[in-house]
Amino acid sequence: MNSYKNTSVIESAQNPLIKKAASLRDKKYRQQHGLFAAEGQRTIGAAIESGLYEIDCLLFDESASRETGALKKSAMAKKIKCVTVASKVMQKLSQQDNAQNIIGLIRHKYADAGKILSSAKTCVIALESPRDPGNLGTIIRTADAMAIDGIILIGDSCDPFAPECVRATMDSIFHIPLARSTVADFIKQNKLPTIGTALQGANDFREVSYKPPFALVMGSEQKGLSGELAKSCDHLAKLPIPGKAESLNLSVATGVMLYAALAPWRK
Amino acid sequence: MNSYKNTSVIESAQNPLIKKAASLRDKKYRQQHGLFAAEGQRTIGAAIESGLYEIDCLLFDESASRETGALKKSAMAKKIKCVTVASKVMQKLSQQDNAQNIIGLIRHKYADAGKILSSAKTCVIALESPRDPGNLGTIIRTADAMAIDGIILIGDSCDPFAPECVRATMDSIFHIPLARSTVADFIKQNKLPTIGTALQGANDFREVSYKPPFALVMGSEQKGLSGELAKSCDHLAKLPIPGKAESLNLSVATGVMLYAALAPWRK
Repeated sequence: MNSYKNTSVIESAQNPLIKKAASLRDKKYRQQHGLFAAEGQRTIGAAIESGLYEIDCLLFDESASRETGALKKSAMAKKIKCVTVASKVMQKLSQQDNAQNIIGLIRHKYADAGKILSSAKTCVIALESPRDPGNLGTIIRTADAMAIDGIILIGDSCDPFAPECVRATMDSIFHIPLARSTVADFIKQNKLPTIGTALQGANDFREVSYKPPFALVMGSEQKGLSGELAKSCDHLAKLPIPGKAESLNLSVATGVMLYAALAPWRK
Repeated sequence: MNSYKNTSVIESAQNPLIKKAASLRDKKYRQQHGLFAAEGQRTIGAAIESGLYEIDCLLFDESASRETGALKKSAMAKKIKCVTVASKVMQKLSQQDNAQNIIGLIRHKYADAGKILSSAKTCVIALESPRDPGNLGTIIRTADAMAIDGIILIGDSCDPFAPECVRATMDSIFHIPLARSTVADFIKQNKLPTIGTALQGANDFREVSYKPPFALVMGSEQKGLSGELAKSCDHLAKLPIPGKAESLNLSVATGVMLYAALAPWRK
């Protein structure tokens, strides 16, 4: 039995490919298979078009429409494996309220941090130990909105390929290169003017110069920037908090910094 | 049997008060009881201190510490009902990863939209039909960080008392007055200079004047501002999106606008 065969419809949730796809909700299996899942016609269209990631396999609902037919054609032209799945199986696989008619299994891939830094034209965001995948996804979306060069995850980051993160990016994960680095490697490789965001010992964010290209370094919500990373920054900028909240949400803080920094350069 | 009695420990998850507390995860029962739940020592401390909401009842874990003892004392001084609950019951009730040692049942209450608008000193945020409770919570947190006058939920809003929203506010729900309004009432009551955020037909957000007090009106992520509300604004401001993302997350867009507008006035 060849479950990958194109012409037949997978009817069973016990099919090995379906079991593999379902297992990707779990970080352990995402790492074991080196894959993550993304859903929906627009999302998969973005994944095919961008070429940032290799698509291992596409699962199409058997009741696919004309639009998904066009997508299937372009996928097959790129030699991407396409499999047809019974609607009842697809509904079980989908993690969205309205079951999507395409699910893609996509290969994990990180870009090279050194390359992103050395070829940067506008801005590179470095995030130290981001913990919340929803926040990380929202940051990837904002980074894409501002068309920056890439995001570097420093230290112990949450999984950018977790479903909550991929969903929160609203397809932007397929537009913005992601890399990983240690604190030491980042400091060694980064030659860009660097602005860190800190609550203490920093200038107001409107008083810091941001001529691109530059690196914007954000610490974790709980702890802020580590001492080593903060020390490596050329400037430290502070977002004022006159009210009672103790801190800002990380994705909001990053968005405020990015728009303050780049909007004057991006008419 | 009086389940509200102070001296005894509630041992059963079938106790009517515990069943009521557990039911508040569900919007239907939140509305039926007119209550929502909030967890944790710091959060309940903020709820008692702020006085924005009436606290119906506090549930304390039987293994409470010295700090929770002080909180219980200040609650009882304010005639708030305090109940002791067995740890195993508390663990079932808690919606957080680490079960909290205090859960408060808090009475729904909206502030008066007209009063917020007429007494505003800095900024009132009006949100038209926000859909995601996590985003709404994050906006409440940012509003609190900037110490603005209040938030008005216009039209068909998600529930600000949903657990995802309350959690995302990080206690700020107890610092910022929330009101509800229809589009027509908001337009009638609002005499503040008003800036709406729109993608079309608008000036760049840096070119709009924001002298406080003013109202900042944000549309939904999916549809933007409704025509009627957009027409009522004195200015329409646009956040540029030079990249591929189709839009910004609502809480990020609101944060960027609020910092751009208020930071110059809030040293």
